[in-house]
Amino acid sequence: MQGKFVSEKNVKFLLHEVFDAESLCRYDLYSQHSRKMFDMVVSEALKLARNLFHPIFADMDRKGPEYENGTVKVHPQVRKIMTESGKGGWIGTTFSKENGGDQLPWIVAGACSYIFFAANYSAGVYPELTRGAASLIAEFGDDRLRQTWIPDMLSGRFQGTMALTEPEAGSSLADISTTAKPHADGYYTLTGQKVFISGGDHDGVDNVVHLMLAKIEGAPAGVKGISLFVVPKLRKDDTGNFTSNDVAVSQIYHKMGYRGCPITQLVMGDKGDCRGWLVGEKHKGLAYMFQMMNESRLGVGLGATAIASAAYYAALEYTRGRKQGRKPGQKDPASPMVPIIEHADVKRMLLFQRAVTEGALGLIMQCYAYADLERVTAGEEKERYHLLLELLTPIAKTFPSEYGIHATSQSIQCFGGYGYCDDFPVEQLYRDARIHPIHEGTTAIQGMDLLGRKVIMANGKAYDLFVTEVTSAMKKAEAYPEFSMYVEKLGESLKTLDRVTGHLKSVAGTDGTEIFLADAVLYLDLFGLIAVSWQWLVQALAAKIALSGPASRKDADFYEGKIFAFRYFLGYELPKVQALAERLTAKDPLTCECVSAHFND
Amino acid sequence: MQGKFVSEKNVKFLLHEVFDAESLCRYDLYSQHSRKMFDMVVSEALKLARNLFHPIFADMDRKGPEYENGTVKVHPQVRKIMTESGKGGWIGTTFSKENGGDQLPWIVAGACSYIFFAANYSAGVYPELTRGAASLIAEFGDDRLRQTWIPDMLSGRFQGTMALTEPEAGSSLADISTTAKPHADGYYTLTGQKVFISGGDHDGVDNVVHLMLAKIEGAPAGVKGISLFVVPKLRKDDTGNFTSNDVAVSQIYHKMGYRGCPITQLVMGDKGDCRGWLVGEKHKGLAYMFQMMNESRLGVGLGATAIASAAYYAALEYTRGRKQGRKPGQKDPASPMVPIIEHADVKRMLLFQRAVTEGALGLIMQCYAYADLERVTAGEEKERYHLLLELLTPIAKTFPSEYGIHATSQSIQCFGGYGYCDDFPVEQLYRDARIHPIHEGTTAIQGMDLLGRKVIMANGKAYDLFVTEVTSAMKKAEAYPEFSMYVEKLGESLKTLDRVTGHLKSVAGTDGTEIFLADAVLYLDLFGLIAVSWQWLVQALAAKIALSGPASRKDADFYEGKIFAFRYFLGYELPKVQALAERLTAKDPLTCECVSAHFND
Repeated sequence: MQGKFVSEKNVKFLLHEVFDAESLCRYDLYSQHSRKMFDMVVSEALKLARNLFHPIFADMDRKGPEYENGTVKVHPQVRKIMTESGKGGWIGTTFSKENGGDQLPWIVAGACSYIFFAANYSAGVYPELTRGAASLIAEFGDDRLRQTWIPDMLSGRFQGTMALTEPEAGSSLADISTTAKPHADGYYTLTGQKVFISGGDHDGVDNVVHLMLAKIEGAPAGVKGISLFVVPKLRKDDTGNFTSNDVAVSQIYHKMGYRGCPITQLVMGDKGDCRGWLVGEKHKGLAYMFQMMNESRLGVGLGATAIASAAYYAALEYTRGRKQGRKPGQKDPASPMVPIIEHADVKRMLLFQRAVTEGALGLIMQCYAYADLERVTAGEEKERYHLLLELLTPIAKTFPSEYGIHATSQSIQCFGGYGYCDDFPVEQLYRDARIHPIHEGTTAIQGMDLLGRKVIMANGKAYDLFVTEVTSAMKKAEAYPEFSMYVEKLGESLKTLDRVTGHLKSVAGTDGTEIFLADAVLYLDLFGLIAVSWQWLVQALAAKIALSGPASRKDADFYEGKIFAFRYFLGYELPKVQALAERLTAKDPLTCECVSAHFND
Repeated sequence: MQGKFVSEKNVKFLLHEVFDAESLCRYDLYSQHSRKMFDMVVSEALKLARNLFHPIFADMDRKGPEYENGTVKVHPQVRKIMTESGKGGWIGTTFSKENGGDQLPWIVAGACSYIFFAANYSAGVYPELTRGAASLIAEFGDDRLRQTWIPDMLSGRFQGTMALTEPEAGSSLADISTTAKPHADGYYTLTGQKVFISGGDHDGVDNVVHLMLAKIEGAPAGVKGISLFVVPKLRKDDTGNFTSNDVAVSQIYHKMGYRGCPITQLVMGDKGDCRGWLVGEKHKGLAYMFQMMNESRLGVGLGATAIASAAYYAALEYTRGRKQGRKPGQKDPASPMVPIIEHADVKRMLLFQRAVTEGALGLIMQCYAYADLERVTAGEEKERYHLLLELLTPIAKTFPSEYGIHATSQSIQCFGGYGYCDDFPVEQLYRDARIHPIHEGTTAIQGMDLLGRKVIMANGKAYDLFVTEVTSAMKKAEAYPEFSMYVEKLGESLKTLDRVTGHLKSVAGTDGTEIFLADAVLYLDLFGLIAVSWQWLVQALAAKIALSGPASRKDADFYEGKIFAFRYFLGYELPKVQALAERLTAKDPLTCECVSAHFND
C-alpha cells in the first residue's frame, strides 16, 4: 500500500525547533549524539517503516493470527520485523551501552516508535513490548537474569511481554491469583492464568519472555503481596538447551482491530513445571511493573497518535483529490466542482485531526523530554522532571487514546461512504484505534490516577509545576499581540482548572472519596484540553520564530498551518473546558446516588 | 445469540405515557386502531425480532454478501426476513388501505422498525428500504405504476431501493449524469452508473425495484433537471413475463460494518436496453425523492438509536455480572469485589448510553407524532406540524448518528478488553453504528440543511414553533420544584440558542454564506443537545406523573431511573451548549481563511 502516514518535517520540527533535542547532548549520557545523528536515526526509522512495516499494514489485518494446536501463527513478516528491529538496534535504542543499547534519548527513540506505529501499529507492538520487558530486567534484574535474557530480546530473537491481567483481575490488580512457590534451586514454581497478553506467544520468534506478576505463597493480601517474575516460554536447561517451561496458550482473542498482533490467554503450571525467576525483591513487583507500565502508557499514547496521523494523511490526500459540490454562494451548476478540501467543514475536520495528532505528539514528546532530563539530572531538578512526568503520563496516555477515536472517525467522515469500505486504510485505522482507551489502564483508571494520586501527591507540587510551565509559555507569547486572544483563553482555562481542582479537593474532605473521584474522567479530559493547548501554544511560538527568519514558501505554509491548527484547537476544543467545569463543580452526585435497580425496566 | 436488545417497557412508556398515541385514533384515518391494538402490534414486532432477526445478528456480519458472476448472494435468511415482513404486513404498515396497508400511525410503525433495527440493523434495512421505495410510487406514481409494483413490494417478493448517488455525485446531487431518453412507447431508456446503492441487488428476492434519479435529455442543469424513475431489475414484457432490464451489478463494497446488507454499484444501459418509467412530472424528481429521503433520515436516526440500545443492554447485563475492584475508600483486599455497575464511572457510562438512546428515541417518536398529525389535520395546524417535522428531521437524523458512535464506544468501554473481542456483540454494534453519519446525507449536509434552510424558512416560523414547544414543557415543569435547577439550565440554553441564531443570521448578511455556514455542524450539535434535553424533560414529567400514582417497586425503579437519566443529560451533556456557543459566536473564521496549502509540509 502506498500513501503517507507521517510527516518527517513535523517530527523534526518538534525535535529541534520545539524541544531542542540536541541540547541533551551536553550531558554525558547523550554526549556521543548530535542533531545530525538524531536526524539520521529518524531517516532510518522512516526507511524501515516505509519498506517493511507499511506494505503489510492491511495484510496483517486481513490475515490475523491463528491458533493451531497450542501455538499461534502470525503473519510471516513478523519474524523479519523482529529481526530487523533487533539488527537496527531499534529495540535497545534507549538502553545503556552496558546493557547493549545506544543510550539514545527517549525523545528520539519515541519519535522513531511513532513512525513505526503510524506505518503499522500492530507490527510496531512486537519490538516495543520487547523493549519494555527487557528494560524491566535491565533495571531490576540481577546479573544472571540480565545476561540470560537481554541479548536475545534486544536482537529480536525473543519476544518480551507484560503479563498482568487475569480473568478476575483486570483493572483490579490487587486481586491476581497466580501463585509462585519457592523452590530450593532458587526459582519459583508458578500456577495460574493470564488473559489479554499481547504477543503472549507466536511463531515469529524463537522464545517468549514474560514479565509476570504473581503472589508468592503466604504473601500479604492485595497489592503489597505482588512480586515480579521472569517466566519464559522455553527455559534453559542445565546443558544450555531450551526446553518447555509449561506455559500453555489456551486461546487467542478475535479482536475488532489491532489484529496483526495476537492477544493470548496463558495457563501456567498445568503440568506443575512452570518456573519463574524473581526480579528484584519479593512483594515489590507492582512498583517495578509500574516503571514498564508508565513507559507503556506513553507508548499507548504514541500509538494512538500515530494511528490518528496515518488517518489524517489519508484524509488529506483524499480531500485534495476528490471533487464534489461548489463553494456556498456559487449556485451555477455549470461551474466546475471544487476539491472537497475547499469546503469549510472539511477543513474543520482536517484541522481537528491535525490539531489532535500534532498536539498529542507534542505532549508525549514533552513527556519524553522530561524523562530524558530526569535521567541525567539530580536533586531538585530531577524531582521536578519526575513530578511533571508523573503528572502528565495519564494525560499523555488518555488524550490521544480518546481523541484518536474521534480523529479517525473524522477521517472516515472526510471520505464519505468510501471511508467505510476497505478500499481505503481508514476503516482499519478506526478499528485499530479503539483499543487504546482500554489497554494499559482504562481511561477510568487514568482519571483516578490523575485526580486521586498525581494532583495531590507531594502536596500538589506536580500540579504547581505544571501551572508554572504553562504560565511561562504564556509569558513568551506576550511578544505576539496577535496571539493575545488565544493566550487569554488559555489563561482563563487555567484559572478554571484551579477553581475545579480546589473544589474537588474540598469535596474529598467533606463528601468522601467516592464523590471526589466520581467524575475523574471528566477532570482528566479538562486537564488534557489545557495540556494540549499549552503544547499548541509552544508549537505556535516556535512557528512564529521560524516565520520571522528566511523561510521558503513551502516552509511558510507549514508554519502558518501550525498557527491555524493552534487557533483551531484553542478556538474549537479548549472552550469545552467550561462545560466540563460546570459539571465538575455541580453539587449533584447523581452517578453515586443512582443504583443498579434504577436501570431496571 | 441471546441477550436483550430493546426495552418493551420503554417503547410503551413513550407510546402511551409520553405521546398518548391512542389519541390519534380520534381521527378517521386511524379510527380502526386502539391502544390495545398498538400494544399487540409492538408485541408481534418483538416476537419476530427475537425469533427471526436477532438470532442471525452476528452470522449476517460474519457471512457477508458475496458477489459472484454478476449477482449478489446474501444470507439465506434474508428471503425469510422479506417474506415474513411482507406476510406480517410490516412493509406496508403505514400505507393506506387502498394501497394495501394498515393505516397505522408512523409513531407505532416507527416503534416496530426500531425493534427490528435493534435486533439486527442490516436485516431491518431490507424491508425498510422497500417500504420507502413503495411509498414513493404510492404517493407520486400513476395507477399503472402502483398496480404493477406495489403489491409485490409490500409482500416482500420484490426489494425496493433508493438510487441517487453516482461516482461523481454523492453529497452534490445536482451533478448526477445518469440520462433518460424518452421512447415512443412511453418509457425512457436509461444510461449511467449508481454507487453505494443499499440492497441494490440480491438473491433474497425475486426482483429489485429501483427508485432512481436521472436527467432527461435536454433537461435544465442542476437540481432543476432531475427526474424520478422506476427502474426495475427485471421488467414485465408484453406477455407478463419478467425479463432482464439491463441493470448490472458491477461490484459490491466491502464495509467495516452493516455487513449483512449489500451495498452495490449499478450500471444501467450497458446493452442500451434499460427502461425506466417516469414517476410524477418531469424535472420534479428531487422534490419527490425528498419525501422518501426525509422518511429515510428519520429511519437512519432510528437505526442509530436502535444500535445504541442493543449496545446499552449488552453493557448493562455485563456490568451487573462482572465483578472487579471495590468501592473507593474500601481498601481491605480481603473484602469481596463488587459488580462493576457499582462504580460511579460505570454508572456514568451507562447513564450516557441510556440518555442518548432513550432521549433520541423520544425525539424521533416526537417527529413521527408530528408526521401523523400532519397527515390528518388541515390549514394552519397542518402547517405547524409540517414545519416542526421539517426543522427537527436533520436533528433526529444526526443526533443519534453522532452520539450513537459515542454510546456504542462507551458500551465497549464498559466491557474493557472483552468489548473489543467478538465474543460479545458490542464490537459489531460499534462497527455497524459508524455508517449513520454518512448515509442519507452526511452530518455536514444535515447541518447546512438545518441552519441554511430550516431555521430561516417561513421567516423563522419553524424555529419559533420549536421554542414554543420547549417553553411549554418548561412551564409544565414548574409543578416540580425539584426540577427547577434543570429547567433553569434548559432555559439558559434556549436563550443561548437564540443568541447564537441571531448572531449567525447577522453574519449571513454581513460576511456571506460561506462564513455563515462554516460551523453549521456545531450549530446542529448545539440544537440537538437542546432538543434532546427538551425530550428528556418531557419524559421526566411523564415519569413524575406515573410516580405520583400507585406504582410497583419495579415500576418505581424504572421511573426514578428515567429521572436520573434526565438529570444526567442536563447535567453532563447540555452544558456543552456553552462551549459550542462560544465558538459559534467567535469572530475568527479560521476554517474559511485557511487553504489547502496550509496543510503542506
